[in-house]
Amino acid sequence: MPRAVREQQMLDAAVQIFGQRGYMAASMDEIAELAGVSKPLVYLYLNSKEGLFTACIRREATALTEAVRAGVRTDLPVDRQLWDGLQAFFAHTAEHPDAWSVLHLQARTHGEPFAAEVAAMRTEIVSFVTRLVAIAAREAHRDPDLAEREVAGFAEALVGAAESLATWANATEGVTARQAASTLMNVTWSGLGSLMRGHHWVPPAGED
Amino acid sequence: MPRAVREQQMLDAAVQIFGQRGYMAASMDEIAELAGVSKPLVYLYLNSKEGLFTACIRREATALTEAVRAGVRTDLPVDRQLWDGLQAFFAHTAEHPDAWSVLHLQARTHGEPFAAEVAAMRTEIVSFVTRLVAIAAREAHRDPDLAEREVAGFAEALVGAAESLATWANATEGVTARQAASTLMNVTWSGLGSLMRGHHWVPPAGED
Repeated sequence: MPRAVREQQMLDAAVQIFGQRGYMAASMDEIAELAGVSKPLVYLYLNSKEGLFTACIRREATALTEAVRAGVRTDLPVDRQLWDGLQAFFAHTAEHPDAWSVLHLQARTHGEPFAAEVAAMRTEIVSFVTRLVAIAAREAHRDPDLAEREVAGFAEALVGAAESLATWANATEGVTARQAASTLMNVTWSGLGSLMRGHHWVPPAGED
Repeated sequence: MPRAVREQQMLDAAVQIFGQRGYMAASMDEIAELAGVSKPLVYLYLNSKEGLFTACIRREATALTEAVRAGVRTDLPVDRQLWDGLQAFFAHTAEHPDAWSVLHLQARTHGEPFAAEVAAMRTEIVSFVTRLVAIAAREAHRDPDLAEREVAGFAEALVGAAESLATWANATEGVTARQAASTLMNVTWSGLGSLMRGHHWVPPAGED
């Protein structure tokens, strides 16, 4: 069997074990057994537990961002792009719960080098969402446009909400990817629409 | 000086060093020096680096949840409660950026025991927000009420968005707590209002 194929089998097994047991408790013995290879071969190909974990994070981060990009057609209206992007995101996290656990939880709970790998993926997703929000703001033809900072804040809020919802959906029986996407779409799209129409929520009068 | 006072000085110094340097890079020497005590005294009071870090997480998690609760008057209208709660949250995270870094980043990136401490705080905040969203849903007098699951999803989205915005606001020059609260209030309150009035965002017709 070619090395590339064997390596993917090792990563498949590792994502499952890391995602379910956690990074600390995961054993290289168990990963090798699940992959159907010897432990020395895992070390030969991936060097160390750290090297294996890093390879898992990179592969799954790429898979997630590619799934979102593949779900979106940039020639469609921007609300449709957001909806399709959210559906692709929640479908991917629901279909790959171990990968999501590795990316969102495990990679952030075991030291800075792993956390930095995931931070790079997050930056890419925030840029992607920022572009959508900026287009939506432009299309609303407001003058002045929604400030750049407000667009950035909106994108950060949306990405944080999506991360939180994906984790909750995977932990909650019977919540589908479509329901999670619909909840977030309703929360954020209505909010964005109101903002762009100038319907800001106004703090009570007389407040400092 | 009484032990309780000395201990708080150690925790003040530790939160600052852990928040700025990260848990791994933080040195007990530097923490002791900043606290103006000897290193053996830090070990005598807090046992270990792990013990000191755990004490920091507990103190700061309590301070953050108390700040949010203290900011909210439950006899006021629910939108005002949400606004006041968000303002209290972002004001606290802005005034204590090192504490926020410890809670949101450091405590989650260095193993499960620390992460579990923060997860308990998060559960409490999600419950608090869920109650507000449920009241808002009841006040809208819809029949049937917003489903329990939709309320829970909404609260998860809101808390995730708040975490993400707090981190972004602290890393971005010139974003005030009030601006962050206002962005999130506009995103979520309009979304909640639309949902309750039955204005769901509808996926394009003909979609599977």
